[in-house]
Amino acid sequence: MRTIEWDKENRLVVLIDQRRLPGQLIHQQIKTAEKMVAAIRDMAIRGAPVLGVAGGFGVALKINELAEANDPNWQPKLQQAAIELMAARPTAVNLGWGVKRAMKLVEKSRDNVKNTAALVLVEALAMAEEDVQTNLQLAKNGATLINDADVLLHHCNTGALAGVDWGTAFGAIRYAHESGKKVKVLVDETRPRLQGARLTAWECEQYGIPYEIITDNAAGFFLQHGVVNAVFFGADRVAENGDVVNKVGTYMLSLAAKANRVPVYCVFPKSTVDLSTASGMQIVIEERDSGEVLDLKYLGENIAPASAHARNPAFDVTPHELITAWVTEDGILYPPFESNYSQSVYNLK
Amino acid sequence: MRTIEWDKENRLVVLIDQRRLPGQLIHQQIKTAEKMVAAIRDMAIRGAPVLGVAGGFGVALKINELAEANDPNWQPKLQQAAIELMAARPTAVNLGWGVKRAMKLVEKSRDNVKNTAALVLVEALAMAEEDVQTNLQLAKNGATLINDADVLLHHCNTGALAGVDWGTAFGAIRYAHESGKKVKVLVDETRPRLQGARLTAWECEQYGIPYEIITDNAAGFFLQHGVVNAVFFGADRVAENGDVVNKVGTYMLSLAAKANRVPVYCVFPKSTVDLSTASGMQIVIEERDSGEVLDLKYLGENIAPASAHARNPAFDVTPHELITAWVTEDGILYPPFESNYSQSVYNLK
Repeated sequence: MRTIEWDKENRLVVLIDQRRLPGQLIHQQIKTAEKMVAAIRDMAIRGAPVLGVAGGFGVALKINELAEANDPNWQPKLQQAAIELMAARPTAVNLGWGVKRAMKLVEKSRDNVKNTAALVLVEALAMAEEDVQTNLQLAKNGATLINDADVLLHHCNTGALAGVDWGTAFGAIRYAHESGKKVKVLVDETRPRLQGARLTAWECEQYGIPYEIITDNAAGFFLQHGVVNAVFFGADRVAENGDVVNKVGTYMLSLAAKANRVPVYCVFPKSTVDLSTASGMQIVIEERDSGEVLDLKYLGENIAPASAHARNPAFDVTPHELITAWVTEDGILYPPFESNYSQSVYNLK
Repeated sequence: MRTIEWDKENRLVVLIDQRRLPGQLIHQQIKTAEKMVAAIRDMAIRGAPVLGVAGGFGVALKINELAEANDPNWQPKLQQAAIELMAARPTAVNLGWGVKRAMKLVEKSRDNVKNTAALVLVEALAMAEEDVQTNLQLAKNGATLINDADVLLHHCNTGALAGVDWGTAFGAIRYAHESGKKVKVLVDETRPRLQGARLTAWECEQYGIPYEIITDNAAGFFLQHGVVNAVFFGADRVAENGDVVNKVGTYMLSLAAKANRVPVYCVFPKSTVDLSTASGMQIVIEERDSGEVLDLKYLGENIAPASAHARNPAFDVTPHELITAWVTEDGILYPPFESNYSQSVYNLK
């Protein structure tokens, strides 16, 4: 089972509800673009690469619904749905990339809604397939940076659950493991939503990769004690200068790695690069609900006073100076990101 | 009510069980040194300064028990209890300091067990009283570093609950607030045990100090966005060179503050300084139970797979280079710590 799939028979999308892992593996049926918006916003589905595919499927669901109703106003309605899909997670660039890719097809099509809907669905399915192939290539490239017996510190979830399959940074670790390298993963729990403890740990168990969970706070301790060989994470948006917007906490982790001369590898498909943004600090960071921070139970009790309020930025910016190498499907990019990326100057060991 | 008190009538110690806050304010009776060891180890009572007082009361409980039994072997038994008390939390220097201070009295005493027991109790009570006075002076000194309208980022709990009253770093914030400065606190939740979200937030509510809780991961975001005027934390042990052992996460927080030119203030009584340790990296860090990390519920489910294991270092080392100033009861110390501390070169604004 992939993270997200098209159910041909019932003409709907099926996805793993990631909020229920690791306790329960539940498949959720998504029949409308509105339900897809909710699934993305509430993080039933999350992870930069797979959000692109989810966006494509969202457009496909909407245009197919409009085609079935033979709606004469299908074009503005589809446009509106596309805007709502993109707004479901404002920071992740892949979501907008996927929606726009599907919409480009619509804009170019001179055909009626029915035939255009069929084309969009084919495109969404192609995006899902490409995602698997791209991420497998990412994994292969990233794995060349991993040596036998390495201890790898990993932030958030960037595994199969973050893509249709394989994912990004964790895919590289999985590929190294499946190639016979004995690796161990220190799994940052990744507050507030605990994607590390819940999802990455679950994936480690699926593939038999040895792991230990740590609090995000403990990363500095392990880095300063010299037990980490490399830090791996993905990206939600990469600016023209190589600054990385990624899950909150990535910045402090990278600072600690740099201070202890531990290499920092950021792994992402090229669809994550946003050349229209010169640097990371220009990017508006999504701030999410207070409840994500506070709705936890500790010894059966709420973790904060009942009237407490929390601030909850979902991402932070890791300046390019802190990153040792960027890994894309085309290879491994060393600094300076800006010129090397534009000239496609990749190095593979 | 103070965090820890001697109940004269029943001849026992009463302390606030900090594991139950903020949900419930429960007073626990501690009748024996063994119960005190358990309360310290299980963190019913925690916080560097108050652990010194708890250590003193632990010795007092034991010698009073031995005096009542008129035990001829009271000296080796008391010695053994002292060792067990100090081992309950191996990293915090104040605990050992408090136990040793009470034991020094025993060693000097040429009197019988009964009279010595009375002396030790008087000493423990004096330690509790001194703790309040010392920490109030700490608070006054630290408050001089705080300006009106400051936003202060605070790690762990260092308030009244970490001392008999007042505490250390948070005491400075409270003193500034009570002096009429309009401050706001960004409260690091402080995983794994969430002393920030549970205890510091609760204290903010008691004193009416405006606050918002953030995940430890989010500290970097707020520091890089320029909304923090200063970072405040306490210390569990300060080495001769000014390196600070404090709650895990302090190191990454200090790195992020330094990178963004935000001042870092470490506040502690002089009893926290361990001149027998040249630098922080020589100090063995207590690693605590896996369950502290994993025994949380998220949406009613465990936050990790059932078979998951966690690594759980309780502290990390913040190198002295990252600290802007150290605050003790004697004043404010700027770098270099080592020579200025030994020569008592303090500056008060």
